[in-house]
Parts: sequence; structure tokens; C-alpha cells
Amino acid sequence: MLTVSNQALNLPVSAIRRLIPYADAAKERGIQVYHLNMGQPDVDSSPQALDAVKNNQMHVLSYTNSAGDKALREGMVGYYAKLGIDVNPDDIIVTHGGSEALQIAIAATCDPEDELIVFEPFYTNYNTFAVQNNVVLRPITTRIEDGFKLPEMSEIEKHITKKTKGILFCNPNNPTGCLYSREDIEKIGQIARKHELFIYSDEVYREFCYTDEPHFSALQLKGLEENVILLDSVSKRYSLCGARIGFVVSRNPEVMKYVLRYAQARLCVSTYGQIASVGALDTPKKYFESVRKEYIHRRDILLGELAKMDGVICPVPNGAFYAAAELPVDDAERFAIWLLNEFNIDGKTVQVTPMAGFYATKGMGKRQVRLAYVIKEPDLIEACRCLKAGLEAYPHRLS
Amino acid sequence: MLTVSNQALNLPVSAIRRLIPYADAAKERGIQVYHLNMGQPDVDSSPQALDAVKNNQMHVLSYTNSAGDKALREGMVGYYAKLGIDVNPDDIIVTHGGSEALQIAIAATCDPEDELIVFEPFYTNYNTFAVQNNVVLRPITTRIEDGFKLPEMSEIEKHITKKTKGILFCNPNNPTGCLYSREDIEKIGQIARKHELFIYSDEVYREFCYTDEPHFSALQLKGLEENVILLDSVSKRYSLCGARIGFVVSRNPEVMKYVLRYAQARLCVSTYGQIASVGALDTPKKYFESVRKEYIHRRDILLGELAKMDGVICPVPNGAFYAAAELPVDDAERFAIWLLNEFNIDGKTVQVTPMAGFYATKGMGKRQVRLAYVIKEPDLIEACRCLKAGLEAYPHRLS
Repeated sequence: MLTVSNQALNLPVSAIRRLIPYADAAKERGIQVYHLNMGQPDVDSSPQALDAVKNNQMHVLSYTNSAGDKALREGMVGYYAKLGIDVNPDDIIVTHGGSEALQIAIAATCDPEDELIVFEPFYTNYNTFAVQNNVVLRPITTRIEDGFKLPEMSEIEKHITKKTKGILFCNPNNPTGCLYSREDIEKIGQIARKHELFIYSDEVYREFCYTDEPHFSALQLKGLEENVILLDSVSKRYSLCGARIGFVVSRNPEVMKYVLRYAQARLCVSTYGQIASVGALDTPKKYFESVRKEYIHRRDILLGELAKMDGVICPVPNGAFYAAAELPVDDAERFAIWLLNEFNIDGKTVQVTPMAGFYATKGMGKRQVRLAYVIKEPDLIEACRCLKAGLEAYPHRLS
Repeated sequence: MLTVSNQALNLPVSAIRRLIPYADAAKERGIQVYHLNMGQPDVDSSPQALDAVKNNQMHVLSYTNSAGDKALREGMVGYYAKLGIDVNPDDIIVTHGGSEALQIAIAATCDPEDELIVFEPFYTNYNTFAVQNNVVLRPITTRIEDGFKLPEMSEIEKHITKKTKGILFCNPNNPTGCLYSREDIEKIGQIARKHELFIYSDEVYREFCYTDEPHFSALQLKGLEENVILLDSVSKRYSLCGARIGFVVSRNPEVMKYVLRYAQARLCVSTYGQIASVGALDTPKKYFESVRKEYIHRRDILLGELAKMDGVICPVPNGAFYAAAELPVDDAERFAIWLLNEFNIDGKTVQVTPMAGFYATKGMGKRQVRLAYVIKEPDLIEACRCLKAGLEAYPHRLS
């Protein structure tokens, strides 16, 4: 029978990508759409990365090692060393972006029906990778009223069953912008040690922290070498989303042995992406300082504008480049589509990402949107003006 | 428990990559190793592809569309049109190489325990993708004595069960170099129509055909629009293995809808790889003519040298750049390792790929090796000299 698979039918439509056709239609009608919907920074890529590719002298664009190019893996050892994280090249496997890193990490460690504890809202594609691996996400809800802070240890432990394989989280967090403290990570470490769980720590936004405290990586947890699997990526760090270069990093040799086997099945990752990533390792400190300053500035503008909108709640995000806001609307997805389909002010509108798809619990996040402050100040201000006017004009606004 | 998954444990070690540590060790001992083991051409990449990347003017290496860059999908429509294949951009989704194309095509169409008919020997990673999708490969053995020709229709039909989802094959074939004729493909088409099966047609070696007959694509089958799923790649065509750009091509809109959903989960493929692939579409005809001439020349040298070796059988390959040979040895893997570990002539040896891993039936192909004629004439001759001397010196040679 020429039918698609049940897994395919169960695969959620990406909450981030679902609205693209509406935005495209709006643009075709001549509407200018401001994008607060996607984590695609407008920040220039690291020039060192781009130059490395432009200056390459290759005549044959050949396969590279399945585990990743040696120069990149060794370079990443140096990168982690500067953060106080001691790993060696065998602890690192280069992947098709952070997406494949997580996909392979789950495949290599989880059997069908195994459970992963997640804190919802979480990055929406965790849902997809769970379906692809027949893994069950066991969500613990974090609340906007509490700034999406992590639940108590006892609350986390209540969700552990015989099927629990690990705890999966993103720090700094996509979509909430929440930054977990050293104490938070150590708490998760204690639970992982006690219950023999993996920690899947997605730290692709590591460089985007806006407090004075340094980011604390799960790889800095002592005595949890076997437990911690880090998911990393160059996409956000150096504004190299299109390089498609990520990493699985773990000191658990058994896990890495099998992660490599998955990597071998798809031969290797982008050679150009790896050249860019090696070049990116020479990005000067001032690049990150200016990017950080810019994001703090944009965040503050966004929060200032949101504060002017009646009925909007938005905790201060201390990391990544997202804010999660609750809107006075019946349904954030309906509102987001309406913004694109039926609304404009002076020929302009705004695209936001409804957050229901960032939850595993049905019905949660229905009034929430993720706002990515990845556009320049004047555009951000215009986007907020559209959002404010949209909220005022929306026929299904909650009073 | 900090254990790896059963799927990971069942994942075969790549037959192509398994010997790399032995080759590395030989090189460390100062031995020069000639590589007949991997499908990595030494042929220069299409200059149009490399130049497109070097001349890019991007400041932000951003995500692209999950389905693939529009210019590339439209360009591919033109590429197929020149072959007499009529598709539109929506029939094409760009993937992380041919590997992901097949991986997603299987995931989107096969449920666990579904069966795929394959003709063994087949590309070894089909085994891996089957394990990753819990799909069962139902092999029909093709024989070296018959030039690995396809089985009769009645033989294929004997292997069809209620669980059969489709027929998966590679044309021209990796590892045998066998080129299937229009009649062969039409025969498979008839069976697919009669039994409502998908045809997964891996045609990444399409440009490497060494007879006067034009290559006949499964997409040229009439009335099988819903059945045919083409797996394609720029890797071999333009010597762009490191670009990691492949394609799923199908006129079945339901299949493509779900292929896209898998693609969305991993956001997009390499932006640089897509730029190279768009550039590659301008590769002049003379590039392919010279590459084809070179491969025919190398093939003939290889066959000539093999003919001088007692007890070696090797049918004439009419496509791709592989030859499958049967050697007078007890075990081709043992021999291949011995060549790297214990043998050298004048400080030189050769790496070949044992073919047992290219079969699904246990015990098959035990004396066969795949030889990739992807190195220049003088090296190829030296590689053959090593192989000949190795066969003569090997202690477990069959008399």
C-alpha cells in the first residue's frame, strides 16, 4: 500500500514553521512583515568564519571523517578549555547542527517508550525528536508567573518512573529566555546521580547570558562524566545558522562509541560548515561583547514596549534571544494568523510564534507567544507598534 | 540506567569505515596505503560549484527553507527536464546528502516490521537505515557469476509479503557497478504497480554510465507517479561529497508532505552546500565527458590488472566507479585487515572493502571485495601491484 508511516502522521508540524505560508501570503499582498518568529539573528556572522570559507583552496570537496574534522574537534577542545571544561577530541562528535546532535543522542540512548523529563515550555522540536525515537516526553510545567523557574527537586523526582532515561533541557532556555543558575544545574545533577539518569543539556545559547554570573555548563558537574551529554552548535554563537554544524559532547565512552556509529551511517557533515567553524574559533572577544550588548539593548527595548501593552505579561529573559509573553487573547495561534491574514497598520504587520507547540501538555501555553528579538532596533520598535495595534484591534481580545 | 539503546547496539559498524583504524595504523608505521576502499573520487570538483562558494557575498550565513533553497529546487527542475524527467519544485526536497534522503524516505513511508525488497549485494548503509527505522530488508541475492544481473520477475514476486512496502535499489549500482537497463526498471515498475509498492530508486551515480544506452530513471516510468521515490545527490555527480546535499524527489504529494515534516524538524541543510549545488548546475558538458572518459580508462586498467591475478573473478562494471571482485581467499575481511596489518611491498599496501557487510544474508559475499577506481592511473596500477602481491603472499589463500 502506498501509504505514509504512522510515525510520519504523528510528527507534529513545527510550531515555528507552521505560519510561514500565511506570512508569505501577506508579503504577496504587499504587506511588510516584521519577523519576531524565528531564531535567525540578523547579526553579521563571524567574519573569521566567512573568510575561512572564501579563502579555501580546495580542488576536491571531499568527505571528511564521520566523527568530524580533526582540526575542528581539536579546536573545540580549546574552546571548552577556556570555559573551564576539560574534554578531549574523542569526547566530541560533529553533527548536522544541534538538531542532529539531539536526534542522535536520543537514538543512541533511548529505547521505545523510554521517558525523558522536560520542563515545558521547551524547544518545540523536542516533540518531533521524541516521536522520531518513540520516546515519551514527561513534562513538568514551569510558569510564566514564576519567571519559568525550574521546579523543586521533589517535584522533579515525582515524575521519575522506571522508564525515565534522563532529563532534557536547554540553558539558556529557548523559548523562555530563562537562564538556569549553577545551583539549578547542580540540583539536576544530584537527581541524575541518585537515579542514574542521563542529562541532555542543550547549551547552544551559552554565549547569550545577560547577568554577571558566568554560564554554568552541565559538563562542569563533578562526578557525572557518564551522565552528561551536551548538545552544542555554532549556529547562534557565531551567527552561522546555515553552516549546519553542531556537536554531541560526552565523556561517556560507551555513548560516544554508538553516537559515532550513527554518524558513520550518514558519512559526514558539511565540509564548508566545518571550515567556517574552525575559522570561527578565532572570532575575537569584542565580537561577542558587541553582540551581547546589542541583544541586551534589544531585549530592553522589547520589554519596554511590551510594558506599554495592556494585559501583556512577560518575565525578564536573562539569556538566549527570546522572550515568552502572555497576551490578552483567546488563542495565540488564532491571533498570530489573524495578524498575518487580516491585520495591518500602514501596510505593516508582525509575525510571532504561538507557544502551544512548545508544551507537551495539551491546552497549555494557549495564550503565549515566543518573541525573538533578533531584528534591529527600529524594526523591533515597528514590530512592537504592530503588535500593540494588533492587540487593540483583535476581535477576540480578552477584556 | 546509563545504558545505550538496543537500536544502537544493533546498528552495524559501517563495512566501509570499519578498516580505517588499521589503515591509520599502517600509515603511522610509514606504509603508503592506496585507497580502493572509499567512494571518494580524486576528480576535481566542478569549478563552477567551488567558485560559487568562494564568490559569495553573504554577511549572515542564515537558515534556508526547510525544503531547500528555492533557486536550487528550481535549478534541479531544469536538470531533470534535460533528462526528460518532468517534475516541479514541490516534488523536490533538499536533504543532508543522499544518506538523509533515504533515511527520511524510509521513515516517512515504513512502519516498524515493514519489509523492503533489496538486491544483495547492496550499499551497506541500507542495513543501517533499516535498523534505524525498524524495517526488515528482504534480500534477493544477485550472483557474481551472472554479472549481478537482476532476478526474474517471478523470483522477485516470491519475496513479496503482506508487509512489503517497496523495492529499494541503486542504479548504477554500488557496490557492483551493475547498470540496470530500461527493461529492468520497467520490470520493477510492473511489479510495483501490480502489488502497490513504493520504488525507492537510488540514482546518485546517474552520470556514471559506460555503455551507449542512456540511463533510464525510475522517474521515467509512466503511470507510477505515486510509487516512485527518487534518492539523489550532488556528491558523485560534481565530485562534491563534502557539500552534503541530496534530494528526495517524488510526485506523490502525500509522501512529500511528510518528507517535508521530517525536513522541518532539522530546520535546513547546509547553505554553502546549496550555493555550491546551484553553481554546479552550470557545470559544462565537457566536465562530465572528461570525467566519464577518465573512469572508463581507470575501469579498464583495473580489469586488465585483475585479469592478471590468478583466481580473481570480476564482472565488467558498466556504471558507478566500483568493481566487485571475488578473491581466492578464505575471508575477504581477514585478508583486507592482513593487507593493512602485516603486508607491504616496498613499503606500500592497498585498502579494499570486504563485501560481507553489503549483504543481508549471513555468510554471503565472504570472499568478495569492493574496489573503487577513484584514484589516478599510476596509483591504481600500484594499488593493483600490491593486491596481486598480497594475494600471492597471503597465508590463507585458497589454492
